[in-house]
Amino acid sequence: MLIVADENIPLLDSFFSDFGDIRRVSGRELSPDQVRDADVLLVRSVTQVNRGLLEGSRVRFVGTTTIGTDHVDQFWLESQGIHFCAAPGCNANSVVEYVLAVASLHASRRGLSNWARQSVGIVGAGNVGGLLAQRLERLGFTVVLCDPPRQQAQFDGLDEPSATEFSSLEQALECDLVTLHTPLTREGEHRTYHLLGAQELATLRPDQLLINSGRGEVINNADLLARLQQPDAPTVVLDVWENEPNIDPQLLQQVWLGTPHIAGYSLEGKVHGTETIYRALSRFLGLPVRKQAGQYLPQPPLSKLAFTSNAGDDAIQQALHNCYDPRRDDARLRLSMAGDEQQRAQAFDRLRKEYPVRRECSSLKIQLKGSSKSMGEQFRSLGFKVNI
Amino acid sequence: MLIVADENIPLLDSFFSDFGDIRRVSGRELSPDQVRDADVLLVRSVTQVNRGLLEGSRVRFVGTTTIGTDHVDQFWLESQGIHFCAAPGCNANSVVEYVLAVASLHASRRGLSNWARQSVGIVGAGNVGGLLAQRLERLGFTVVLCDPPRQQAQFDGLDEPSATEFSSLEQALECDLVTLHTPLTREGEHRTYHLLGAQELATLRPDQLLINSGRGEVINNADLLARLQQPDAPTVVLDVWENEPNIDPQLLQQVWLGTPHIAGYSLEGKVHGTETIYRALSRFLGLPVRKQAGQYLPQPPLSKLAFTSNAGDDAIQQALHNCYDPRRDDARLRLSMAGDEQQRAQAFDRLRKEYPVRRECSSLKIQLKGSSKSMGEQFRSLGFKVNI
Ligand SMILES: NC(=O)c1ccc[n+]([C@@H]2O[C@H](COP(=O)([O-])OP(=O)(O)OC[C@H]3O[C@@H](n4cnc5c(N)ncnc54)[C@H](O)[C@@H]3O)[C@@H](O)[C@H]2O)c1
Ligand SMILES: NC(=O)c1ccc[n+]([C@@H]2O[C@H](COP(=O)([O-])OP(=O)(O)OC[C@H]3O[C@@H](n4cnc5c(N)ncnc54)[C@H](O)[C@@H]3O)[C@@H](O)[C@H]2O)c1
Repeated sequence: MLIVADENIPLLDSFFSDFGDIRRVSGRELSPDQVRDADVLLVRSVTQVNRGLLEGSRVRFVGTTTIGTDHVDQFWLESQGIHFCAAPGCNANSVVEYVLAVASLHASRRGLSNWARQSVGIVGAGNVGGLLAQRLERLGFTVVLCDPPRQQAQFDGLDEPSATEFSSLEQALECDLVTLHTPLTREGEHRTYHLLGAQELATLRPDQLLINSGRGEVINNADLLARLQQPDAPTVVLDVWENEPNIDPQLLQQVWLGTPHIAGYSLEGKVHGTETIYRALSRFLGLPVRKQAGQYLPQPPLSKLAFTSNAGDDAIQQALHNCYDPRRDDARLRLSMAGDEQQRAQAFDRLRKEYPVRRECSSLKIQLKGSSKSMGEQFRSLGFKVNI
Repeated sequence: MLIVADENIPLLDSFFSDFGDIRRVSGRELSPDQVRDADVLLVRSVTQVNRGLLEGSRVRFVGTTTIGTDHVDQFWLESQGIHFCAAPGCNANSVVEYVLAVASLHASRRGLSNWARQSVGIVGAGNVGGLLAQRLERLGFTVVLCDPPRQQAQFDGLDEPSATEFSSLEQALECDLVTLHTPLTREGEHRTYHLLGAQELATLRPDQLLINSGRGEVINNADLLARLQQPDAPTVVLDVWENEPNIDPQLLQQVWLGTPHIAGYSLEGKVHGTETIYRALSRFLGLPVRKQAGQYLPQPPLSKLAFTSNAGDDAIQQALHNCYDPRRDDARLRLSMAGDEQQRAQAFDRLRKEYPVRRECSSLKIQLKGSSKSMGEQFRSLGFKVNI
């Protein structure tokens, strides 16, 4: 069996070499010739997968290791009986850790002794927003969920009945922290394009924190810049921007933290993308699933933190910062914003392409001696490996 | 034997109860009546020790657990044959860790991959500056020392001959990092009052970092504010201010990090002050020194970090941040600056009095698996306990 795969997919050999031969290609310059004799095609978001690429090929299975599928003509694949699979949610945990790290920094900056005594409005309760809500609730935060499409589906009986209570956008925007996790949609009743404009931004108070790690266009960035120039502006953190990679350097100057669309870029997140496709291909071929991402992850630089019985509630925040400190990505982005518009755009892309290895909480062992059981549970709920 | 002691001296009982009875007093309101029948008096900087307090008392030994001695009339004590002892250098290590933590944050903010590839100008090479120079040199920094009084003493043959090479203030001010560790002196050839004024500050470049954790009045704060309002201003970190506790809130706004004169406030630093006086009293009484500060220090909240062979050069900076992150003290100071001048001054003092427990690098075990020997040595040179 021949597998043609984007050379930038991590752990290709580890996961797929047992299936057959692997032909590594540049995803950006893939030609029909290179896939004609392939049985399986594995891509990332840089490859357009459509009739032009695949007509006349032997390909029966296409997998993309990404959560997005805009680059794939699923309709045409289906019409040809070609099996297709993506990796929805593979980097949800990475984004959740980004948001938690930001929230923790914000709490210490505001001198809050107990960060969980805050309310969090989550706009968009899908893979990322849903997981974030779970984590925050286990940590003791008050969570307000806004997701009209899901609310509607629940109401219509399309979704399984659940105990989830949804709130309005207005209610979410009243929370101490507001974090956006919707896709970008430009049409329909629940379209998200410019969901937050001048009017919504005007309601935010200076003690509030607004985070966008969904899609840049969900906030009207010009309106946001104007709002940030007012004396009672909220604190804002942006991972996603309108018009990436041509982001507005003035807006970057006004936000508290700005990062180059990397919230989902943990190593674990990237590897889960490969793992998801490996599992789907195994299932497709009727073969057992024998491999797990965990086997192939390298040792993290920092492997263990030991806390004593003198550790307080902020131990969990300290552990979180040891895994990920968004201020570093913020510093790198600010430093890269010299030069003209084109150079800035290239720098934005380069920061994403050359992103340093970032590990998730699951890579870190936490040793707790004589701490409360509930502290151990909190650490566990964030994915840390806990020894008591 | 009766020991009269300021109740705010840490570990009084642990160190002194074997010598006799301890009478705990409020250092600020100590009266002659309370010390008349004492043999030993132990104070901090809030107690004026002079003829008015001690005439007619039995006191034969006065110890201050502080590095400063301005509150003690040493001349009068000597004239009465009362033995006196202070604790010079007891918190030098705490200040050194403050400076290293600031330097490390600055390096990551500037995107430097190797922080030691910088030069550091140290103005004042006494207990703090000298220890800092040692540490920095072991880490690989280029160190430039400016200390005209010591240079003069060396030249005059008053100091032991040493290999130390001294530089001018101008040379120190050219370094990437410039850090001030002089006392405040208002007279003499080498007086430090307003050592840095408009002229000196004008020579600093925007890529330079200036830290003052010596004494506030060594920099003309009005000139500094004016310099910081220029577009090519250097980055400035202040732990000490002119006119404490009435610091200039405008200046605080302009500095990168501002802290309330707490660079020396580690728990270890405070306890070393007690230990120093304990040793001096033991010697004075001809008794063996049997106790060490280490015995009495509580467990730190975080006791251990384990790094793997994948750890890079920044592991040492990560360990440093786990012990001390000056951004927290900066955040607390900024938050406290609401209200009128009097409220701000009270807040400044309160932050010092209610300073949270801060531990030094020596409280943290570092486990290194498969790392280079030189990395272990670097960790050790900062005082960490290292297991390889
Ligand atoms: N910054 C990053 O690195 C990064 C990483 C992963 C995902 N993302 C982005 O985050 C977003 C969410 O990802 P996901 O995997 O959770 O997607 P998802 O499809 O699982 O969830 C999106 C949720 O948003 C809801 N939604 C749609 N319109 C809405 C509206 N008008 N108001 C409120 N909610 C609405 C949907 O009902 C759905 O529940 C996506 O846009 C994705 O591209 C960013
Ligand atoms: N921020 C804090 O929490 C904190 C803590 C400890 C010490 N300090 C302050 O730091 C300063 C240094 O403390 P130390 O224990 O090292 O004192 P020290 O007396 O041991 O050393 C001071 C050094 O400064 C030198 N010096 C004097 N005039 C000078 C000049 N004009 N130019 C250059 N050097 C000059 C002296 O020769 C001496 O070597 C003191 O002012 C002390 O109050 C602050």
